Amino acid sequence: MNAKRRRSRQLVAFQGELGAFSEEAARKLLGKSIEVLPCQRFEDVFRALAQNKVQAAVIPIENTLHGSVHENYDHLLHFDLPIVAETSVRIVHNLIAPPGVTFRKIQRVFSHPVALNQCLDFFARNPQFEKVPFYDTAGSVKMVMSEGLQDAGAIASSVAAGTYGATILRRSIEDDRQNFTRFFLLRRPQDVRRNLKRTRKGVPWKTSLVFSTKNVPGALFRSLSAFTLRDLNLAKIESRPLRGKPWEYLFYLDFFGREDEPACRNALGHLRELADTLRVLGSYPRGD
Amino acid sequence: MNAKRRRSRQLVAFQGELGAFSEEAARKLLGKSIEVLPCQRFEDVFRALAQNKVQAAVIPIENTLHGSVHENYDHLLHFDLPIVAETSVRIVHNLIAPPGVTFRKIQRVFSHPVALNQCLDFFARNPQFEKVPFYDTAGSVKMVMSEGLQDAGAIASSVAAGTYGATILRRSIEDDRQNFTRFFLLRRPQDVRRNLKRTRKGVPWKTSLVFSTKNVPGALFRSLSAFTLRDLNLAKIESRPLRGKPWEYLFYLDFFGREDEPACRNALGHLRELADTLRVLGSYPRGD
Repeated sequence: MNAKRRRSRQLVAFQGELGAFSEEAARKLLGKSIEVLPCQRFEDVFRALAQNKVQAAVIPIENTLHGSVHENYDHLLHFDLPIVAETSVRIVHNLIAPPGVTFRKIQRVFSHPVALNQCLDFFARNPQFEKVPFYDTAGSVKMVMSEGLQDAGAIASSVAAGTYGATILRRSIEDDRQNFTRFFLLRRPQDVRRNLKRTRKGVPWKTSLVFSTKNVPGALFRSLSAFTLRDLNLAKIESRPLRGKPWEYLFYLDFFGREDEPACRNALGHLRELADTLRVLGSYPRGD
Repeated sequence: MNAKRRRSRQLVAFQGELGAFSEEAARKLLGKSIEVLPCQRFEDVFRALAQNKVQAAVIPIENTLHGSVHENYDHLLHFDLPIVAETSVRIVHNLIAPPGVTFRKIQRVFSHPVALNQCLDFFARNPQFEKVPFYDTAGSVKMVMSEGLQDAGAIASSVAAGTYGATILRRSIEDDRQNFTRFFLLRRPQDVRRNLKRTRKGVPWKTSLVFSTKNVPGALFRSLSAFTLRDLNLAKIESRPLRGKPWEYLFYLDFFGREDEPACRNALGHLRELADTLRVLGSYPRGD
């Protein structure tokens, strides 16, 4: 709690409208009292932090239904902004309307098409509702509120309802409850040394890295030996073909351990011998 | 060509509206003259094939910006519908309008929000255009045509323009040209034996599988030895945490080789000893 209070009033960038799931992740990571800077593109989020306009940034990195956000891995490689924490947010969709608008009054429901498509069972049970696509989940709440629509609802997070003073009429209307997004908290390199010193007892650490292998058979197998030979467990491995370089791959890898622990230092040294390129993206306590 | 003609007039299911990128993939895989069945959900596509309503199905499996479509891996595990071919389609966005509507007349541009967000440089150069979110890329062309809008355009594939008789005003307006989606062609198991017999000279084959490992350190490393020890090269490896089972993972793996070749049969037998579960999803010639 003390740590949270100390870190409060900092400005945190994320992509999307106020009330987006990224904002929910930011408040889960840093406490309710942070100030936030919504950005239009992911690149703007990274740039805001690199240019010192904010103290931290929160980005989605993978979703249980939709996979890894390769674009953000690209930005992690391009910018030098280490990962200092992770968290997961369950994507809960709610039917939200302006105060006074009841369930029965609703004829149109606005939201991002991906969210509308994740609530098809709800729409099948309520055929009176017309689905209306909108550019953003939280943005659809903002719009029904600012326009004062009396026959319309929106589908978005509970944070979005709170942000715009709207009412939640039905909670958790999504088809699949196994819909989680994992987020990273990023800071500038000069603020990271402090992070590595801060340890929470009993919480294991993770380290995320990206590497590419030389174009030889068994390259990945040999690369993984750097971890297996030191009993370091993997939490994630994913290959991504390098466009224009057939047979060459980028690998995203997360392992349990801290960059500055001896076994991890040795594993990374070993991997550096075997890999073509290697970038450590950060060490951080395992999130929820 | 003969093969294409023989396979023509078959009915092929895909998710989305007529003119969707999945339809483009289906025609690239099976020739221009196929008939198609657009479906609302991915699950409907699998069910249509399983219930013999169509002869084949085409599904997206991964995108270079957005990662793997985990939902379709889930369906591949749930249904028994083997992969028999793959292809990649470059996602090209075009500005499309009803015939007679010129670039200068356009004030609003409709499309799926993901497509609108992939053309931000175009909108920055053309601030006179209002971006209007719509539920589908091809669906937005269908709508501007059927409504006969005189001040509106849509962003979609060239196939969508052709499907609805609309005009392409600007080609390839997407920000990032490295935007490719990989598609699988699926058939019923009884039609696959024929597929394995058909070989195209010089084209290497790939085999896709999903396996989970026992909860022991180094399990993935040992699993990969089944391939490395037989000089079989990997084309893809990706882990996915099994929810509710900490430390246990599903792995998606593609390797170069055909299921019925001796080295591949041995590797799969070896992996079966080491893995908790193993499902071979299909063998198919490497696509473009």
